[in-house]
Amino acid sequence: MKTAHENEAAKEELVSALLSFLPREQVTTNQTILEQHSKDESYHTASLPDLVVFPTSADEVSDVMRLAQKYQVPVVPFGVGSSLEGHTIPYEHGITIDFSLMNKVLEVREDNFLVKVQPGVTRSQLNKELKKYGLFFPVDPGADATLGGMAATNASGTTSVKYGVMRDQVRDLEVVLADGEIIHTGSLAAKSSSGYHLNGLFIGSEGTLGCFTELTLRVYGIPEFTMAGRATFKTVDDAVGAVVSILQAGIPIARVELVDEESIHQVNLFSETSYKEQPTLFLEFHGNEAGLTQDVEFMKVIVADHNCDGIEFETDTAARNQLWDARHNLAYAYVHGYPGRKLMVTDVCVPISELAGAISHSREGLQALNLTGGITGHVGDGNFHALIMLDLDNPEEIKSAEKFNEMIVMYALERGGTCTGEHGVGIGKQKYQEKEHGKALRVMEKIKSVLDPNNILNPNKIIKTKGQGESQ
Amino acid sequence: MKTAHENEAAKEELVSALLSFLPREQVTTNQTILEQHSKDESYHTASLPDLVVFPTSADEVSDVMRLAQKYQVPVVPFGVGSSLEGHTIPYEHGITIDFSLMNKVLEVREDNFLVKVQPGVTRSQLNKELKKYGLFFPVDPGADATLGGMAATNASGTTSVKYGVMRDQVRDLEVVLADGEIIHTGSLAAKSSSGYHLNGLFIGSEGTLGCFTELTLRVYGIPEFTMAGRATFKTVDDAVGAVVSILQAGIPIARVELVDEESIHQVNLFSETSYKEQPTLFLEFHGNEAGLTQDVEFMKVIVADHNCDGIEFETDTAARNQLWDARHNLAYAYVHGYPGRKLMVTDVCVPISELAGAISHSREGLQALNLTGGITGHVGDGNFHALIMLDLDNPEEIKSAEKFNEMIVMYALERGGTCTGEHGVGIGKQKYQEKEHGKALRVMEKIKSVLDPNNILNPNKIIKTKGQGESQ
Repeated sequence: MKTAHENEAAKEELVSALLSFLPREQVTTNQTILEQHSKDESYHTASLPDLVVFPTSADEVSDVMRLAQKYQVPVVPFGVGSSLEGHTIPYEHGITIDFSLMNKVLEVREDNFLVKVQPGVTRSQLNKELKKYGLFFPVDPGADATLGGMAATNASGTTSVKYGVMRDQVRDLEVVLADGEIIHTGSLAAKSSSGYHLNGLFIGSEGTLGCFTELTLRVYGIPEFTMAGRATFKTVDDAVGAVVSILQAGIPIARVELVDEESIHQVNLFSETSYKEQPTLFLEFHGNEAGLTQDVEFMKVIVADHNCDGIEFETDTAARNQLWDARHNLAYAYVHGYPGRKLMVTDVCVPISELAGAISHSREGLQALNLTGGITGHVGDGNFHALIMLDLDNPEEIKSAEKFNEMIVMYALERGGTCTGEHGVGIGKQKYQEKEHGKALRVMEKIKSVLDPNNILNPNKIIKTKGQGESQ
Repeated sequence: MKTAHENEAAKEELVSALLSFLPREQVTTNQTILEQHSKDESYHTASLPDLVVFPTSADEVSDVMRLAQKYQVPVVPFGVGSSLEGHTIPYEHGITIDFSLMNKVLEVREDNFLVKVQPGVTRSQLNKELKKYGLFFPVDPGADATLGGMAATNASGTTSVKYGVMRDQVRDLEVVLADGEIIHTGSLAAKSSSGYHLNGLFIGSEGTLGCFTELTLRVYGIPEFTMAGRATFKTVDDAVGAVVSILQAGIPIARVELVDEESIHQVNLFSETSYKEQPTLFLEFHGNEAGLTQDVEFMKVIVADHNCDGIEFETDTAARNQLWDARHNLAYAYVHGYPGRKLMVTDVCVPISELAGAISHSREGLQALNLTGGITGHVGDGNFHALIMLDLDNPEEIKSAEKFNEMIVMYALERGGTCTGEHGVGIGKQKYQEKEHGKALRVMEKIKSVLDPNNILNPNKIIKTKGQGESQ
């Protein structure tokens, strides 16, 4: 499509071919819509697709893929564009497949704790539907992402310390492959030892191995009893130490989020809360009342040992929701607090014993490089983020931020961690893949080459394609 | 190696080449040792390797692989031979790599709940070591298998309803690939979105994509409080109904095993217990005392609703261990009870709502086909086994048993289940792969072909190689 991209006649031919099987309203070259599909929520440079299609079924996606093969046109799947590493930005142009019309919850099998959804369903839409059955879907990345996008990046978030990540919830995917074939990667069974684990391979493949057209997900009963609260500490080190001790004591925590003083300040400004502007842990426990009461008493003893200077539990649902909304809106709070600036978020995950050191190292880095931002994280997993507000017109600042990101990544990789705990590789973390995976990257390249020999599926994401420069 | 297998000179050349880098005592063609490596614990026909090597390091395994490539000799990795579907039987002969000398627990990182082991470490050996740290490894397939073998088949067992299967415990594998390259498939981080999920792909690959030379596994704190007991029911249907209700009530059970009346009879004979010979659930709960007390009270109400006619909790550790030993020794009890016969075990897993129907169907089938055996299962996952004792000199009986196995598999597949919940494919479940995976099997074949282009890694297991007949 490099040719078609620069060639109006070729582009028109492609549109006509698409219109042979798609209704007019499902194919567009409208400039505004192209622009909406040219970016994500990050600082990565925008790039326009040549056209956007809005399929309504797996068969339509399959037909688009066959046509893309015929014309050798890149294809990029798109949910709501909430990714943070440029995953959905079509740097090679071509066709963006927007899944917003495939947004139905197809089936709730409450007796099996399973739900079947189309990829364009968002997590809040799913949870609204599940609530009628006393069920919920736990994976919670903050943004109201689509489930297709969350599976594509192996998203996680605040609850993964208890419930696991996207990969742990997916029983089956319907996938349209590069050649247009439609496969299922799993079954409805709770476990299987049959054949290679294609579920796990396709989850986190960021649109580079296929497009998801249906997902069967595990869901959970809404816990009998939930307790949520905030614990404040004098220092970030104290807060992190408390988390490590809680985990080591085996207290089955459902959520534990660190928010540093600068981030609490942004939360207060944006969410009109009046939380003490100190390093804070947001905590949640799920279980039965007797068990939680015992767990929480034990937890209080532990945090006291780590110089906790205040702990407050929210007893009613409204206050609990306000607490978690405030936490979820943190990225938006920063964006709101620094108009005109763009967000860069680091995303390493380290073994829990390395967490305190990694967070100290990051805070020192922020200060030394004079960057604007703060630290937050799903600290129960060893995953944390530095949120940096960038002035894209200041090349020195961008350079500093990139240096900072690299410092954090190297610190994590040297200690057995990963460069991305939950945001994915996209183009932003591509340069660290060799360092992180070593020769295993050759295995990934082989898998990509055999499943997408013409490299049309989200090209140059995760796996770097020779001869193509980086776009940021 | 088809040539070398039939050609003594070629075989001698191969042995000399191996002896250029392995000590004499690590390479053998001793007939008794070849015979030990010709079979597993199942009814599948034996077949001899040409020679067995006993490496002591990843580098030695890598050298063996490079040599196998040079001579185009099949390579089969071998733990203790406890598999049930012929995984380790070298039907194409060649080199069997026995990992029994790589049996060290290399590192216990108690602060991170991680342990690094060599592939020949058995699960009981690991748990003995972990006990010193107040930790345990939960995956428990019954047999005292090696952790390398358990990862190769994605084993699970009694505790997976709470802790998950092998795939959920592996943070990193060191793998020797078909070309002798050594890779790492993961990291020490609790979660990652970096690159394709090679951990998940290699786990369950049954030696067809590489040989594991080191595993980093997640371990757990020994629960503060454990309650275990037996509940007896008038009918199997009642017992299964009780399990489904317990799960739907959200009671976080750690183990729930169904043992039918015939199987309890075998347990009593073998383990010298005097359990009531009725359909029985073996149950276990892990947590804190207050929480468990509440959970168990709720559970008692539920089982009463399902005509439970007796429930007994074992309070001390010795009685609890006796209970689980009895359950674990069930397969051996059958083997002991029917001298001269061989074991066939079915292994389907179905959505939980289909479990009662699937078990009834199996019990009717056993009776209709006049087969000797009983039913047991990890019913919390929807996974159950029919254990059948076969007279291998009776071709009619073998035919009936195979028909029975096929009936059970088809019943499961038609209801969204899988042909193997935890034993793996080997050669026994190969014939169901097409039916279960459809076109996804083409994706698996492509992955196999690109990672093992000369098909020397455990050939003709999982993925059927053209022109090679089935060996059973």
